[in-house]
Amino acid sequence: MTRLNDFETIRQWDNANFVHPWEGMGEIGNNRRTFTEAASGIHITTETGKRLIDGPAGMWCVQVGYGNTEIADAMAEQARDMAYFSPFSNTNSAPARLAHEVARRTPGDLNRVFFTTGGSTAVDTAVRFVQFRNNVLGKPEKKVIISRQKAYHGSTYLAASVSGKERDKGWLDQAQELAYFLPNVNSHIRPDGMSIADFLDEKIADLENAIHDIGANKVAAFIAEPLLASGGVIVPPEGYHKRCLEVCRKHDVLYISDEVVTGWGRLGHWFASEEVFDIVPDIITTAKGLTSGYVPMGACIISDALIDSISGDNSQGATFSNGFTYSGHPVSAAAALKNIEIFERDGILDHVRSVAPLFQERLDALRDHPIVSDTRGMGLVGCVECSIDGSVKNGLEQDRAIGARIDHHCQDMGLLLRPLINMCVFSPPLIISEDQINQMFDIMEKGIALAAAEIQAG
Amino acid sequence: MTRLNDFETIRQWDNANFVHPWEGMGEIGNNRRTFTEAASGIHITTETGKRLIDGPAGMWCVQVGYGNTEIADAMAEQARDMAYFSPFSNTNSAPARLAHEVARRTPGDLNRVFFTTGGSTAVDTAVRFVQFRNNVLGKPEKKVIISRQKAYHGSTYLAASVSGKERDKGWLDQAQELAYFLPNVNSHIRPDGMSIADFLDEKIADLENAIHDIGANKVAAFIAEPLLASGGVIVPPEGYHKRCLEVCRKHDVLYISDEVVTGWGRLGHWFASEEVFDIVPDIITTAKGLTSGYVPMGACIISDALIDSISGDNSQGATFSNGFTYSGHPVSAAAALKNIEIFERDGILDHVRSVAPLFQERLDALRDHPIVSDTRGMGLVGCVECSIDGSVKNGLEQDRAIGARIDHHCQDMGLLLRPLINMCVFSPPLIISEDQINQMFDIMEKGIALAAAEIQAG
Repeated sequence: MTRLNDFETIRQWDNANFVHPWEGMGEIGNNRRTFTEAASGIHITTETGKRLIDGPAGMWCVQVGYGNTEIADAMAEQARDMAYFSPFSNTNSAPARLAHEVARRTPGDLNRVFFTTGGSTAVDTAVRFVQFRNNVLGKPEKKVIISRQKAYHGSTYLAASVSGKERDKGWLDQAQELAYFLPNVNSHIRPDGMSIADFLDEKIADLENAIHDIGANKVAAFIAEPLLASGGVIVPPEGYHKRCLEVCRKHDVLYISDEVVTGWGRLGHWFASEEVFDIVPDIITTAKGLTSGYVPMGACIISDALIDSISGDNSQGATFSNGFTYSGHPVSAAAALKNIEIFERDGILDHVRSVAPLFQERLDALRDHPIVSDTRGMGLVGCVECSIDGSVKNGLEQDRAIGARIDHHCQDMGLLLRPLINMCVFSPPLIISEDQINQMFDIMEKGIALAAAEIQAG
Repeated sequence: MTRLNDFETIRQWDNANFVHPWEGMGEIGNNRRTFTEAASGIHITTETGKRLIDGPAGMWCVQVGYGNTEIADAMAEQARDMAYFSPFSNTNSAPARLAHEVARRTPGDLNRVFFTTGGSTAVDTAVRFVQFRNNVLGKPEKKVIISRQKAYHGSTYLAASVSGKERDKGWLDQAQELAYFLPNVNSHIRPDGMSIADFLDEKIADLENAIHDIGANKVAAFIAEPLLASGGVIVPPEGYHKRCLEVCRKHDVLYISDEVVTGWGRLGHWFASEEVFDIVPDIITTAKGLTSGYVPMGACIISDALIDSISGDNSQGATFSNGFTYSGHPVSAAAALKNIEIFERDGILDHVRSVAPLFQERLDALRDHPIVSDTRGMGLVGCVECSIDGSVKNGLEQDRAIGARIDHHCQDMGLLLRPLINMCVFSPPLIISEDQINQMFDIMEKGIALAAAEIQAG
C-alpha cells in the first residue's frame, strides 16, 4: 500500500494526468480529491487513515462489500487459466455459464444476454439493437426513444442522448432527433391540491400523448429506470410502470427497463422489474452489482420474442454488427459468477428484504428535520432532499451546495454520502447490518443538524 | 476446469443465452463455436484438448501472452485491498499512477488520460470531447469527423458512425451527418500505371478536398488508425500520416490517432504515432494491449494544449459531463501497471523490434504462392490476401470464404488465424520467439497450399 508521504506526488499525477469523469474545466489540474486506498466490508479508508461507512457503495455497485477474497481469487484463477478469448470467433464456459445464470434470474423470456463493459454500453447496445430490429422488420422510420426528465442512462453519445438529466447536457452534443423526454414523474412536485392518483393519470397521459404526437409508427421504445437513481432517487407513483407498459404494448412500442442501479439486490431481488414493479419488459440493461463493481461488466438482456422475430427465417441474413473486444470477458464473467454464488449462499437478497424496512423507517424519520423537504427511497437506496424553509420547490435556488455541506459533516463523523446539489443520495453495500444502518442514520441526523445550524448562522 | 462431457450442456447455454458480438441472425442459437478454455504463453487450448498457436493474440491484445501469474496476482491484490472507488468524487493511487505512466510514454504533450472501458468508449469519448471543446470555444457548427473507408473505430453508435467498414453498416443506424469517409488508402488497389507517390498525392488531396468541400469551419477532426487493422492491415504509403497532419494543422482540424491496435508494442513501440509514423496527434485512443487484454480498460489521451484551451479562465464554467462508473477502475489499472512493468523488465519492445524483420520476411515470402495476391504488415501484424488467380481486384468476388478455408487447415496443424473474407489476419502475442514465428509461417504455407488444392479440385 502507498505510504502517506507519497501522496503529494501521486496527487500531482492525479491532477496532471488523470482526467476524471464529469471533470470541471474551471478546476481541472487543481483538485484535492480524497484518495480512497483501502476498504473492507462496508468501510473505505482514505489516505489519512480515516475510515468511513461507504454510503454510496462506490457508485451504487459494491453489493457484497469490499475486501471479498473469494471474488479476488476467482478473478485471479480465471486470469491464470484463460485471461482472454475472442467472443467474435470463439466461446468460453465462463460467460456461457454466466449468461445462463443471468437468464435464469430475469423475468419472462428475457433469456438473451449481450455482455458489455458497463451500463453505458449496455444502453448503447439496447438502443442499437432496437434500431437494428426495426430495420430488419422493414420499419426504418420507427426510431424515437421516449425517455424522461431526470433519467440517467449513461455516457456514450447515444446513452447520453436518451438521458434527461438536464444539467449534464449544457456543453455536450446529443442525437436530439432520436429522443423525446417526458416530464418529471416525481409526485412530490405535483401542483397543490392534485392527488397522487390524478398525478399518475397525468404521467400516463404524458406517455400516451407523446406517442400520439410523434406517431406510433415512429416511436421505437420507452426507456425507464424502475426508480430514477442519480436523478434523485425518484420513485414513481405505484402502478406507474405497469400502466406505462400497457400503453407501450398498445402502440407496438418496446419497453427497456434500465436496471443498472436496481438490479442485483438493491431492492431485495435479482431484478426489480417484475418482482417489485410487476412488469416484464422487452429488454433489461444492467451492470454495477452484476460484479459487485470488482471488475467492469454490463449486459443488455433481450427477450427471446424480440430475437425470434428477426432470426432464422426472419433474419434476412442480417448481422447485428455490434459488440466489444471485452464482450463476455472471462475474468469479468468469473467475478460475476462468484458474486452470484455469494449472493445465494449468504442469502443477500433475504438480508436486504429483512433490513430494508429499518433503513426506510430511519430515512422517513429524517423528514422531521426542518431543512429536509423530502425523503425518497426503496430497498437499500435513499435520498434526502433539503431546502432552507423545507419547501422542495425553491430548494435548488436557495442553496445548491447543501448536499455537499451535509456530506462534509457526515464525513467528519465517519460516513460518506453522495451529494447532488441540494440532495444527498446513499445506497450502502447490501451486507450492511441493522446496527450499521442505525449508525449511518445517527450520523446523518447530526450532519443535517450541523449543516442547518451553519446555514442559519449565515 | 470444465470437463469435456460438460461442454454439450454449456454449448446449449452458449446458444440459448450468450449473444455474441457480430451475431448472425440467421444462425443465432445454432452455432457450434469452439470453446477456448485454457491458455499458456502463445498457445490456447480448446475443449477437445487441441493446442493452437493463437495467431490473433485473442483480438490483437494478449501482448505478454497467456497464463501470466504476475498480472493475475496484481489484479487479485488490488481487488482485495480496494476493489472499487468512485472516480466521480474520489481518486485512487492505481489509476493516478497509471495515468502518469501512460503520459510518460505518449508523444508530445499528450498528458491527459481519460480512462474508459475499451476502445469503443475511448473513441466515443474522443469524439464527444472534440464536440464539447468546440462548443466551449464557440464553434458549435464545427463537428464533422473525417474518417476513411475500411476504418474500424469501435461499436458504440458514435464510434460505429465514424467507422468505414462498409459491410458492418448494412443493418445498423449511423449518425451520418457527423461523419465523412475518404476513399481506401490501400496502394495495392491503385490504378495500373499509377506510382505510389502519385497515389499518395491523391490520398492527401482526398483529405484536403474533403475539408474544402465540407468547409473547414465545419470539420472538427480527422480520425485514423496508423494502420487500418481489421479493415485488412492496410499500411498507408510512407509519409501519409505526416502529410495528413500537415493538412489538418493548416485547416484547424484535430488529428485523432486511433492506436487501439498499434499501441503497446504491436509495432515495437509504446505508441506508433510518433516513433513509427513521425506524427504527434492531438488525441490518441487506446485499449487492448494496455492491459494485455486481462481485464477491460481503454483510454482517450488528450494533449495539454487541447485541455488548456478550454480550462481555467477559458472554461466558461463548463463540465465535461462524460465518463463511466468504471473509468479508471483500480483492478484494471493494477493490471495495466503490472503489464507495463513486465514490458520494461522483459524488454518486450526490443524483442518485437528484433523479431519483426523475420516475421515480415516470412510474410513477404507468402506472395510466392499463386493464390496469394497481396501480403501486408508491419511489426508483429500481418495479413495475407488471396484470390484464385492472384489478382486482388476480383478476390472478393471469386471466393469470399478463402480466409476461412486457410484458417481451417491451419487449425488442423496447430495455428489459429483470423479469417476476414478472402484474407487472414494475424498478430501473435508479442513474446513469440523466432522459432515460433517460423513454425507459424511453416503452417501457414501448408494451409494456403491445401486451400488452393481444394479450390482447384472444385
